[in-house]
Amino acid sequence: MKRKYSVILGNLGNTCDRFCRGYKDNPSTSQMFQHAATMPHVQGIELVGTWDISQKNVKEMKKAFLNSKLTCVSIIPDLFADKRFWKGSFCSTDSKIRKYAIDYTKKMCDIAIELNCEIVNIWPGQDGYDYLLTTDYQQQRQWLCDAIVELAQVYSQLKFALEYKPKEPRTHSCLARMADTLLLIQEIKCENVGITIDTGHAFNAGEVVAESIVLAKRAGNKLFHMHFNDNFGSWDDDMIVGSIHTTCYLEMLYWLDKTGYSGWFSMDQYPYREDAVGAISESIQWLIKFDEIVKANRQKMDELITLSDAVQTSKFLRNILC
Amino acid sequence: MKRKYSVILGNLGNTCDRFCRGYKDNPSTSQMFQHAATMPHVQGIELVGTWDISQKNVKEMKKAFLNSKLTCVSIIPDLFADKRFWKGSFCSTDSKIRKYAIDYTKKMCDIAIELNCEIVNIWPGQDGYDYLLTTDYQQQRQWLCDAIVELAQVYSQLKFALEYKPKEPRTHSCLARMADTLLLIQEIKCENVGITIDTGHAFNAGEVVAESIVLAKRAGNKLFHMHFNDNFGSWDDDMIVGSIHTTCYLEMLYWLDKTGYSGWFSMDQYPYREDAVGAISESIQWLIKFDEIVKANRQKMDELITLSDAVQTSKFLRNILC
Amino acid sequence: MKRKYSVILGNLGNTCDRFCRGYKDNPSTSQMFQHAATMPHVQGIELVGTWDISQKNVKEMKKAFLNSKLTCVSIIPDLFADKRFWKGSFCSTDSKIRKYAIDYTKKMCDIAIELNCEIVNIWPGQDGYDYLLTTDYQQQRQWLCDAIVELAQVYSQLKFALEYKPKEPRTHSCLARMADTLLLIQEIKCENVGITIDTGHAFNAGEVVAESIVLAKRAGNKLFHMHFNDNFGSWDDDMIVGSIHTTCYLEMLYWLDKTGYSGWFSMDQYPYREDAVGAISESIQWLIKFDEIVKANRQKMDELITLSDAVQTSKFLRNILC
Amino acid sequence: MKRKYSVILGNLGNTCDRFCRGYKDNPSTSQMFQHAATMPHVQGIELVGTWDISQKNVKEMKKAFLNSKLTCVSIIPDLFADKRFWKGSFCSTDSKIRKYAIDYTKKMCDIAIELNCEIVNIWPGQDGYDYLLTTDYQQQRQWLCDAIVELAQVYSQLKFALEYKPKEPRTHSCLARMADTLLLIQEIKCENVGITIDTGHAFNAGEVVAESIVLAKRAGNKLFHMHFNDNFGSWDDDMIVGSIHTTCYLEMLYWLDKTGYSGWFSMDQYPYREDAVGAISESIQWLIKFDEIVKANRQKMDELITLSDAVQTSKFLRNILC
Repeated sequence: MKRKYSVILGNLGNTCDRFCRGYKDNPSTSQMFQHAATMPHVQGIELVGTWDISQKNVKEMKKAFLNSKLTCVSIIPDLFADKRFWKGSFCSTDSKIRKYAIDYTKKMCDIAIELNCEIVNIWPGQDGYDYLLTTDYQQQRQWLCDAIVELAQVYSQLKFALEYKPKEPRTHSCLARMADTLLLIQEIKCENVGITIDTGHAFNAGEVVAESIVLAKRAGNKLFHMHFNDNFGSWDDDMIVGSIHTTCYLEMLYWLDKTGYSGWFSMDQYPYREDAVGAISESIQWLIKFDEIVKANRQKMDELITLSDAVQTSKFLRNILC
Repeated sequence: MKRKYSVILGNLGNTCDRFCRGYKDNPSTSQMFQHAATMPHVQGIELVGTWDISQKNVKEMKKAFLNSKLTCVSIIPDLFADKRFWKGSFCSTDSKIRKYAIDYTKKMCDIAIELNCEIVNIWPGQDGYDYLLTTDYQQQRQWLCDAIVELAQVYSQLKFALEYKPKEPRTHSCLARMADTLLLIQEIKCENVGITIDTGHAFNAGEVVAESIVLAKRAGNKLFHMHFNDNFGSWDDDMIVGSIHTTCYLEMLYWLDKTGYSGWFSMDQYPYREDAVGAISESIQWLIKFDEIVKANRQKMDELITLSDAVQTSKFLRNILC
Repeated sequence: MKRKYSVILGNLGNTCDRFCRGYKDNPSTSQMFQHAATMPHVQGIELVGTWDISQKNVKEMKKAFLNSKLTCVSIIPDLFADKRFWKGSFCSTDSKIRKYAIDYTKKMCDIAIELNCEIVNIWPGQDGYDYLLTTDYQQQRQWLCDAIVELAQVYSQLKFALEYKPKEPRTHSCLARMADTLLLIQEIKCENVGITIDTGHAFNAGEVVAESIVLAKRAGNKLFHMHFNDNFGSWDDDMIVGSIHTTCYLEMLYWLDKTGYSGWFSMDQYPYREDAVGAISESIQWLIKFDEIVKANRQKMDELITLSDAVQTSKFLRNILC
Repeated sequence: MKRKYSVILGNLGNTCDRFCRGYKDNPSTSQMFQHAATMPHVQGIELVGTWDISQKNVKEMKKAFLNSKLTCVSIIPDLFADKRFWKGSFCSTDSKIRKYAIDYTKKMCDIAIELNCEIVNIWPGQDGYDYLLTTDYQQQRQWLCDAIVELAQVYSQLKFALEYKPKEPRTHSCLARMADTLLLIQEIKCENVGITIDTGHAFNAGEVVAESIVLAKRAGNKLFHMHFNDNFGSWDDDMIVGSIHTTCYLEMLYWLDKTGYSGWFSMDQYPYREDAVGAISESIQWLIKFDEIVKANRQKMDELITLSDAVQTSKFLRNILC
């Protein structure tokens, strides 16, 4: 399968944490765009709503995409950094906020259409809960369903890719894992709603990504988009691909092919203390390397997953090391 | 909701781990039955296939149930201790083993019917995988679906409660969490297939049990059975209810009522180093205590889950402490 | 033991995360001070260097303490939010930064003396590492030792309380757990260097806090300070005390008494979406409640820890619930 | 550094878990010895007390070692499988059991001397606790110190390597991590007491093994022995080296050399569902491969740990893949 690599624009800029407001100087949107455009293999960009894109700069951005021959891969509405959403966006207990979240997302959908962007990547980071016994889980899930249905029906020409994550910024997210997100998708029965796997979110959720890919396949070809990064498992560290996991990525790429995934490979990192272009480029290079290995060994890997013999798998993996 | 408490017979006997073959002396099945029958509040017993029940002792066991006025709550086919299933039962790559697993489970279904037992509790502990790149996840899940469908169709008068668990004895189980198990149930479309929540398995899977209960409700009233125990979160320690989690159980009982759960409350523990009757009785006593609190505060809890104010929830919880 | 409660000033103000720059409006330092002064049971305040206190406002702050009759409990030098320390403070590979970190901390020590504050609470949040194979662990630890020794020797009238935390903002911290921090203290042999337990950091490190308290006792009465909060175990959620853990706090308070701890009980929370005064006050109220239980049952608890019978402990805990 | 590889004898035999009493047929001790003797690179064997070795077969075993030219690398007294130790061995609250544990271990020390074995590997698996508020941590730690001191003083010609592990079979072990075990060693001041790192135990404890190696070095060259295996981080899965972690092992071997470790590399696995000889041989082959990489790149790795640039480290690691 021919790969298409992209980056999330803001990852090239300043990244902060809850203690430090910024480890680096903040480049402008157009500077970040320039940086992205010069990165080898990068053919597309994802834009975070409000941060990177709004009605104000949509024409300018459209021009930038045209000039650079890059594709606008997705719009990610800002449902996580706007303080209005401090206690939820689509699932806020305040009906005005729920309406505002839907209206705001619709504006982002309009922008997506204007930028010939096929995917709206929905990460409702503030929809979840922090403390036990403070949430009507039944009502919360219903509100989430209602919002997604409304968006999916009004914008039937767009694909809505729901990005799950077990926690952060809330201690518990509504869309926490592959399987519960698929359940919601099956419940709302909208053809144009699917899934974004963020590999780091999946690791943090304790998933073996290859298996999650298979779940999405069985639920009706529901894998719409991929975000790549790595972490130590217990938090969304947003690190360079391949820094911790190895076999996991090989298996993942193998299964992406086997299930016919043809979407983007988008890098989603927080290079707090690294050169952003360097760190994000490394992830692409790792994925290219992993892909070469898979390509050269596909038949062997077919055998290994049927054989179910850990000693043989170990031998194979060992031989990959130079 | 009137509670019905039960125990898993083997929990009253010897419990071992991978190092020590047994910390206690092993009582006989009938001795364990006697112990169970004398435990306050216990109205039912779950039997593990082969360990506790087989064609050989089914008549004797039927008599024991009659004499004791206890109910046979479920049969748990032994899909985990038989070395034949070392690399899977319903999902073994060996078709003979898959057939054997189904045939064996059918025998357990026959026994269930003979004992007027409504539930067959399916915990396919050996169905999963240990190493990456050794498993055809797609095929594995299909085999699991096929087996459950066959059982559910042949024994349409029984309820099949699938018990999920993230790991152990395999490093990864096929039925790992509430949501992926519900996905399988939706895929196979069998009315008489539902879920067993083992609270410890759910904790180990990182679930907030109350939310899992809501997921099962939304998927069509799919919560069939409950196993209770406690743990420290990172492993299935099978401890006394209430030894680690507190609020969690209050919230769980509240939502069991709110979603209309009317099934059994079954204790499932491994009291390795404790008096078994004492430790299991403690769990029941904790659940009674928690239920009293929920009963006395249901309206307040209704308010709290709508209010979504952690400070108010904290005040309420603090006042529960004497 | 008579308890002394305090708060960290900034916890009363705005709290942000890596996505959202602030969920609330930001009160001024003097407003936060006013709020702290009116909180029941609060007798002291901890100040974060640079954020709350510097040479510029030290006289004003001294007056505020005098007027309010509150004690300045500790100064926490800002070794975590200053972007200069993005790759370490005491352990930066840049010798100029290491020197700057020590010089800056010395200024904070001077301020501590001026405010009659006994404790400098050292949390070197940026000293650690993110990626494998990027760190000379031997050298890093040596630099950390050198810095602490220099501070401890120059300011022998102050107590330096080292606050450990397993991760965040780095994926791995130098001072990660009680035991490794005690090892460092034993290595440098400075009487006036000890430990701050942040209960949430300890939970996140997988510690049973009571046992950590005993380790500090055995290493020569090295527990200097306590920060209280709660979390779900896998991250430093900085929540209200008692929202998740229960027995843990009872055991902790019991052992604080048993080992003769006479220091402060300081609240350290991030009430992102809660009323700050309300949420922090709740923690104090929980600790008061837990203390009442311990006080009323000390003899029983003495027996239980000797008896080593989980069933008896369970009975005791169950009776604490109303 | 010239490596010396060894295996733990019982790993070649039957392995069970708490559900299944054995996945394979059980070879005899002498059969396992034969298997070990034929494994490439294996020069030594570790024996578990009682299981593999006792007064009864010591002469026979001595002959087997002589004939095979293998070294007896360590004796591991059985402090974990004997039901007498169900609630602790050296730390049992029953003084008779504590005495028995010491006496039994002394017998194993005598056997070690008879077999020209330098190391007694102490894994006090049952010394710990399961439930909160059931343990006098102060007393428990004292008993553990007393036992180790007595053994170390009586058998001053032997080296006692303490093997830490965070949990299992107890929910919490006394010797849980590198740092707390080093604290105990510093407290008892016995030259001949040091540490065994089991890589899987360290992963399960959340340690970066390279850093743990440095801690042992700084505490006075306290790393006596190494057990190798791999796992997914949340449990002691005892898998083939390199199946999950990659970079971790490279860094580990690099630091073993840098700190001058000259001890054995012993394989410690539970190949439940794998060919034992095959699975254990794989681990050795992985370590040889990793060692080749370290040897060929030592200067580069020296630079990388000083450079502290994750992008450069990533490039290096990527180039190791063929």
